[in-house]
Amino acid sequence: MASGVRSPRPLLSGILVSVQSAPSVVTVACCQLALAVGDLEGNRGKARDAIRAAAAAGAGLILLPELTNSGYMFSGIDELQACAEPVDGPTVREWTRLASELGVIVVGGFAEQGEDGEAYIAAVLIDPTGVRAKYRKTHLWNTEKNSLFGMGSGLPPVVETAVGRIGLMICYDLDFPEWVRAVSLAGADLLCCPSNWPLYRPPEGERPGEIIRAQAAAGGNRMFVAVADRAGSERGQDWLGGSVIVDADGYPVSEIRLGEETIVMATVDLAEARIKSISAGNDVHRDRRPELYERPIED
Amino acid sequence: MASGVRSPRPLLSGILVSVQSAPSVVTVACCQLALAVGDLEGNRGKARDAIRAAAAAGAGLILLPELTNSGYMFSGIDELQACAEPVDGPTVREWTRLASELGVIVVGGFAEQGEDGEAYIAAVLIDPTGVRAKYRKTHLWNTEKNSLFGMGSGLPPVVETAVGRIGLMICYDLDFPEWVRAVSLAGADLLCCPSNWPLYRPPEGERPGEIIRAQAAAGGNRMFVAVADRAGSERGQDWLGGSVIVDADGYPVSEIRLGEETIVMATVDLAEARIKSISAGNDVHRDRRPELYERPIED
Repeated sequence: MASGVRSPRPLLSGILVSVQSAPSVVTVACCQLALAVGDLEGNRGKARDAIRAAAAAGAGLILLPELTNSGYMFSGIDELQACAEPVDGPTVREWTRLASELGVIVVGGFAEQGEDGEAYIAAVLIDPTGVRAKYRKTHLWNTEKNSLFGMGSGLPPVVETAVGRIGLMICYDLDFPEWVRAVSLAGADLLCCPSNWPLYRPPEGERPGEIIRAQAAAGGNRMFVAVADRAGSERGQDWLGGSVIVDADGYPVSEIRLGEETIVMATVDLAEARIKSISAGNDVHRDRRPELYERPIED
Repeated sequence: MASGVRSPRPLLSGILVSVQSAPSVVTVACCQLALAVGDLEGNRGKARDAIRAAAAAGAGLILLPELTNSGYMFSGIDELQACAEPVDGPTVREWTRLASELGVIVVGGFAEQGEDGEAYIAAVLIDPTGVRAKYRKTHLWNTEKNSLFGMGSGLPPVVETAVGRIGLMICYDLDFPEWVRAVSLAGADLLCCPSNWPLYRPPEGERPGEIIRAQAAAGGNRMFVAVADRAGSERGQDWLGGSVIVDADGYPVSEIRLGEETIVMATVDLAEARIKSISAGNDVHRDRRPELYERPIED
């Protein structure tokens, strides 16, 4: 895969890199990991093992969950600050080495120590040439707001890679169709979403709403969506374990193994996401009426 | 139900009526009808029978499909023009009489003859006091664009009724999260969506994407969504028959009886849609970052 990367450039802002390459077939792996808050060495080891296992199984694009380095259920700011690390810290450095060694793309979430002293829920996209994009979560969940994390205010990146254009957001961000649409309109073939979905048990026989909304995000935009979620439980918080790869028609193409520690995979042709047509006369992007969307419905 | 209506006013534009009434428990019925193109008498009879049957079964809010008066598979503009009728034509007049007689709200789609000579895919919301809102479909599907129908450019109405605030759009409109969000932000407790969903068979074991996207529209906005779809087939076009009532958590609370001619019902408490909170720290509306949504992702 590395040989297909043309003129790559390091990218740390949310801007689509203009280097063109054709979207292609790629095997995507979502690593659904059970992590432990504060166990930096242990978590790093789990991520390393998962990346190696996924690459050995043929994956070209490997996703890790949100906050993979740190775990999630912090007792407070001190515990978080002890985990947060800069982009050039040991976690992202290791992922970068692995991406280069294995010739894969790695997308993973981590607790970032910002230059401003704030901690952020961040994610990186790394290809064999290095870190291509970083993103900070923009829609924070629940206690994340409680003087723990700073709130991102950058747009989600869409990065031209050797396999196609990859967008990046984190967990609760995916519930905002405004955000999803922006990434799709910017040209993403695949939206990657490291997540820590807390378990809300769906009604008997129903697929969890988090996955339903990931399906709608995909189908409504004719864009692949991949989510790497957490497994197991941590300080009394059960995780959904809803990792999934959804195709551009909006249907899961990976297994869904709720709650388990596992790696789910699927081989997808990202070129399908370039076809926005859904009938002889319809196109999910061109059928939008943006001139109408700005006007509020009056009250 | 009629006794609960306070100071109703006729409303034909897409504006939220400011009269307040508390949202309440209501039984919603979605009439999934097999109609025949051009059979005005037959179609009107089917709608009449369905409204009476649903009311007899306890429904307070009764939905009919898109283009209930006319059917869908027109041979051309002449056949359509022979079916289209104004808002004060026989179809809407009959629905208005039934709403008053039975003390119910009726939401139904019809082929409208506009004052400008154009035909429109329209829907009305009628309560026991009369027609409260009319809406013209804004996102047209496939051959609807082929010199058949005019394209609506009005915002979807949100109407204060005796049972809560009801929003209105038609079929493919529901695939545009921009449109759905606008209705939710305008305060809709329930979004009603008369539809004619052509059958695209989903993968084995999967729920159709149309219903998945209705679920996401509901869950992502904490708003009820009800769809009345078509049944059977018409001139070689099979209909999905995906009528469904989805609760504010995004899960179906009615049966789903794909393809059958049937009425699906559910009793819902629309007050649940006023609770936008989904955790101690989250609210699906207040968590939006509108200041970020206007900025395009650069290329």
